[in-house]
Amino acid sequence: MRRYTYCMQASEKERHMEKIILAESLGPFVHEIFVKAGVPEERATVLANCLVEADLNGISSHGVIRVPVYVRRILQGLTETKAVITPIEDFPASALLDGKNVIGQVAGEEAMRIAIQKARTVGIACVGLRGTNHFGTCGHYSEMAAKSNMIGFSFVNTTPLVAVYGGTRKAVGNNPLSIAIPAKEHFPIILDMACSVAQGKIEILKKKGLDIPSGWAVDEEGNPTTDPDKALKGVLLPIAGPKGSGLAIAIDILCGILTGSGVGNEIRHLNDPEPQNLGAFFIAIDIAKFTNVDMFLGRVDHYVDCLKGSAREGEHILMPGEECFINHGERLITGIPFPSAVLDDLNEVAAQLGMTDRI
Amino acid sequence: MRRYTYCMQASEKERHMEKIILAESLGPFVHEIFVKAGVPEERATVLANCLVEADLNGISSHGVIRVPVYVRRILQGLTETKAVITPIEDFPASALLDGKNVIGQVAGEEAMRIAIQKARTVGIACVGLRGTNHFGTCGHYSEMAAKSNMIGFSFVNTTPLVAVYGGTRKAVGNNPLSIAIPAKEHFPIILDMACSVAQGKIEILKKKGLDIPSGWAVDEEGNPTTDPDKALKGVLLPIAGPKGSGLAIAIDILCGILTGSGVGNEIRHLNDPEPQNLGAFFIAIDIAKFTNVDMFLGRVDHYVDCLKGSAREGEHILMPGEECFINHGERLITGIPFPSAVLDDLNEVAAQLGMTDRI
Repeated sequence: MRRYTYCMQASEKERHMEKIILAESLGPFVHEIFVKAGVPEERATVLANCLVEADLNGISSHGVIRVPVYVRRILQGLTETKAVITPIEDFPASALLDGKNVIGQVAGEEAMRIAIQKARTVGIACVGLRGTNHFGTCGHYSEMAAKSNMIGFSFVNTTPLVAVYGGTRKAVGNNPLSIAIPAKEHFPIILDMACSVAQGKIEILKKKGLDIPSGWAVDEEGNPTTDPDKALKGVLLPIAGPKGSGLAIAIDILCGILTGSGVGNEIRHLNDPEPQNLGAFFIAIDIAKFTNVDMFLGRVDHYVDCLKGSAREGEHILMPGEECFINHGERLITGIPFPSAVLDDLNEVAAQLGMTDRI
Repeated sequence: MRRYTYCMQASEKERHMEKIILAESLGPFVHEIFVKAGVPEERATVLANCLVEADLNGISSHGVIRVPVYVRRILQGLTETKAVITPIEDFPASALLDGKNVIGQVAGEEAMRIAIQKARTVGIACVGLRGTNHFGTCGHYSEMAAKSNMIGFSFVNTTPLVAVYGGTRKAVGNNPLSIAIPAKEHFPIILDMACSVAQGKIEILKKKGLDIPSGWAVDEEGNPTTDPDKALKGVLLPIAGPKGSGLAIAIDILCGILTGSGVGNEIRHLNDPEPQNLGAFFIAIDIAKFTNVDMFLGRVDHYVDCLKGSAREGEHILMPGEECFINHGERLITGIPFPSAVLDDLNEVAAQLGMTDRI
């Protein structure tokens, strides 16, 4: 069976699988780390769940590998743990929240919860989130809507990594968007995509000694390159030229300018010693306000069957997000493979926080 | 000055510019054609304006070149002209309209107008449009929101032309989406993109005797091809693999299933002798519900300046939609170039309808 990765942010499966860890051990361990770092119990649960979920889904770049940098930021006071997220604007179908530089996952879940609640009353709702932080995968939040029989959109902006179409310098984030749609028997459809090629893909081709396709990157001088070394020192290009560029720009404005957060170079990287000042934006659309939900879900199933039926004989087509669900199901039972370096880092953080347990 | 085309649906500028026509002559001529064909005055104005606007913008594929097929459909009773568009569902932030198979542009404008009206009260609103027809450029409707100091989204689904990622048969439309954002001194940002490469681009490479880039299409047997001939007989591939594919799928569900319209193969082509049964979806977000509008517009201007500043020396970066605005300004004064075949077809339609005027 041929497998297609629909999890855009996923790094390739680690080739050095040193240890298999069960989610049921990993979750409480990571939770305790955050509690020891000063995160309130409930918020530590949200954060640990998000990270472990990403690892279960196979999106290891957004999994517990992030624990050390998150903890460092919390201990240095760069990310808030206890501040109360408050509404700045509040209307029947929209709200603007002050994220108060609190942990991104906590603020993101709160924002999408409000969007879902409002949409249940008025049909559609959106919530903008000002001044937040790296919040893991975009798909986590849109999926919250799908679980409530809604169509969910989530967007977030990031530090500039990508040139805009026609440019050759870093100007716009590799801003992701996610759209989630529930189905009946099939997995929900969860598109989660960034607007340029993931840097990780270039690194993999480099290690294989292969050239990258033209159109992925320019070198430091702004010249097109297929040399992965030059690409890594240079600038990523948006997907499909003006299309990916336009999406990245629109997401930046929606998340950054509309919410009163940073945009472009005003956003700080996770490794910078300052609040990140990201913005995020969430939309929930209540399916029941348009049609019978059961009929909708049935039609989505039928549509997915039709799409899958367009595969060549002997091949399989996966829907957006499907590989994540398959990974999730498998890894819940068999455990999650980690390179030992990732676990060593977790254990080091645990030791620094005075924990005796090790993973 | 290097120019980048951000108008995704634009066919390349016609190379046989036989005649230059002023919009002020073309508009009334096309309007009269539709009135003679039985379209009520006001609706004929909407339709003529949309088509001429597309030609002014340089998107000739969606301009008056469509008049003959529109008229044929109207005369054959395949497209309704007089039916009243009515709400099926109506909530404070959402509505579902029965498009009653009326001219797409008329229904689309009505839907976006309602979305804007509702958003002005509650913050965001969406309107689904059931059972409609080809409605020209997606950007026309999102721009209506931008003109009202809102952020607009528009989506529409179309007949299957494109394979989904991993598939090799036509399964999903080259479904477009548009996002429009107002600016202060700069042109509004209007992204208008489809989810695969335009077939027209393959035709142009064919005429030049050039290969197409790999990843654009597969041949009839589903094998990757760089031969434009084989590509044109084969199937288009989505942009950026799973990303374009996922967007096309999400748009299909939003426009088709959520609104109770056709999806995938249930949609008829403009040339088929049946109602098209398309769906469309519109979202308007009221900027004033989030922030001071003037401040927002100023920040967008500053952001655009920053993006433009990332160009190499001596080069220019255009924002999404900017080339359309430039074309529009120029062509309003100098006129619109048309290949004579397009004008001959218009004149033939006019003659058939008993008009004495010719363009």
